[in-house]
Amino acid sequence: MSAGLPRTARGLATKSKLIEAAERVFSRVGYADASISRITDAAGIGQGTFYLYFDSKLQIFNELVEDLNHRVRLAMSEASAATDNRIDSERAGFRAFFQFTADHPALYRVIREAEFVSPGALRLHYTRIVEGYIAGLRAAGAAGQISDIDPTVAAWALMGVGEMIGMRWVLWGDEIGGDEVAGNAVAGADSDPFASGTRAVPEHVFEQMMRFIEGALGATSHVETRKP
Amino acid sequence: MSAGLPRTARGLATKSKLIEAAERVFSRVGYADASISRITDAAGIGQGTFYLYFDSKLQIFNELVEDLNHRVRLAMSEASAATDNRIDSERAGFRAFFQFTADHPALYRVIREAEFVSPGALRLHYTRIVEGYIAGLRAAGAAGQISDIDPTVAAWALMGVGEMIGMRWVLWGDEIGGDEVAGNAVAGADSDPFASGTRAVPEHVFEQMMRFIEGALGATSHVETRKP
Repeated sequence: MSAGLPRTARGLATKSKLIEAAERVFSRVGYADASISRITDAAGIGQGTFYLYFDSKLQIFNELVEDLNHRVRLAMSEASAATDNRIDSERAGFRAFFQFTADHPALYRVIREAEFVSPGALRLHYTRIVEGYIAGLRAAGAAGQISDIDPTVAAWALMGVGEMIGMRWVLWGDEIGGDEVAGNAVAGADSDPFASGTRAVPEHVFEQMMRFIEGALGATSHVETRKP
Repeated sequence: MSAGLPRTARGLATKSKLIEAAERVFSRVGYADASISRITDAAGIGQGTFYLYFDSKLQIFNELVEDLNHRVRLAMSEASAATDNRIDSERAGFRAFFQFTADHPALYRVIREAEFVSPGALRLHYTRIVEGYIAGLRAAGAAGQISDIDPTVAAWALMGVGEMIGMRWVLWGDEIGGDEVAGNAVAGADSDPFASGTRAVPEHVFEQMMRFIEGALGATSHVETRKP
């Protein structure tokens, strides 16, 4: 393909503006209703310029998935790097993931829509996250910080925990009270799950999730060493 | 609404045929491209008859989500009922969930599309599964079969584990080899994640997942009592 590689700083800035606009448009109206003109309007850029960087709506969608994937992995790995054992690393990585989800609720919507629009992009998103995860879990296993559980299976399971807790508490917020899911579920059921972009996982939920994870990984240490 | 309640056995059979056809059509072509005439064609039923039971495409979609939700919960609870401790119950429930996923790959696709089409249906799906789960975990905690971990948090986390392991191994199959996710991911990345409806979670993966879950729940017993 001819498009896609800006050669100047200004070109990079334009491309980046288009991807940011695509994040807003895809997450607000979905893939089917997102048009190239909506994206260029949102970016404040002429429609002709779009084709200097992307061949099609599908291409910018795929690049957006890659971009979100890259950014969420970066946020998690930067947070984890400041720790010196696996459980602190999980703790920091999960906090970063939930913060990213709060800042970019588009992550869930765009990734899930990828299941229909671009199944390959969906698979790459998950497998890339898992890939880094496996290496970290294997190293922690070798160092005796966790049990010898299969790091691949553990990585997929942990990703599922993060995705579900993030959906429930970050995207949906806390209006469904702890143990009273049944009675109150319908109240919030019709609200837009993407309306909130600033909710956080309550501390109690986070700590119980960490307890779940520590047990799952057979962690040998429970001491948290917070970095400022 | 006037539609929806068939009064005869024949009416129930017709309604059920329409929901089965909707499952096939929605999972094959997605919500946007699924028309009422496609659904009635797939069911071998006249289009006029559709409106005796449903007011709209959205209504049959919502009823399909409810139907899948009801059936997957039934499959899991029937499997779990034949066990006498929480870990065996988890084991049986997860096996039933993966089997249901293999038999009904539409579950994932329809539920995820609900995120766009009918967010309320998506929330109800998850909260209803969690609701039953919480009761079981609380009882197991009270009986000393698992730790006193918060049953709500544990239920959402376990649902995440099941969903991710099911996506990875049941829907995607096993072509991405265990630890070599990185190298082989692209090979299968463009294939249709819904093409397979018969894949199973490999025994090794299932056992490692159960180890993860037992540790997470702080299970006090590890003995499996299989029922025929």
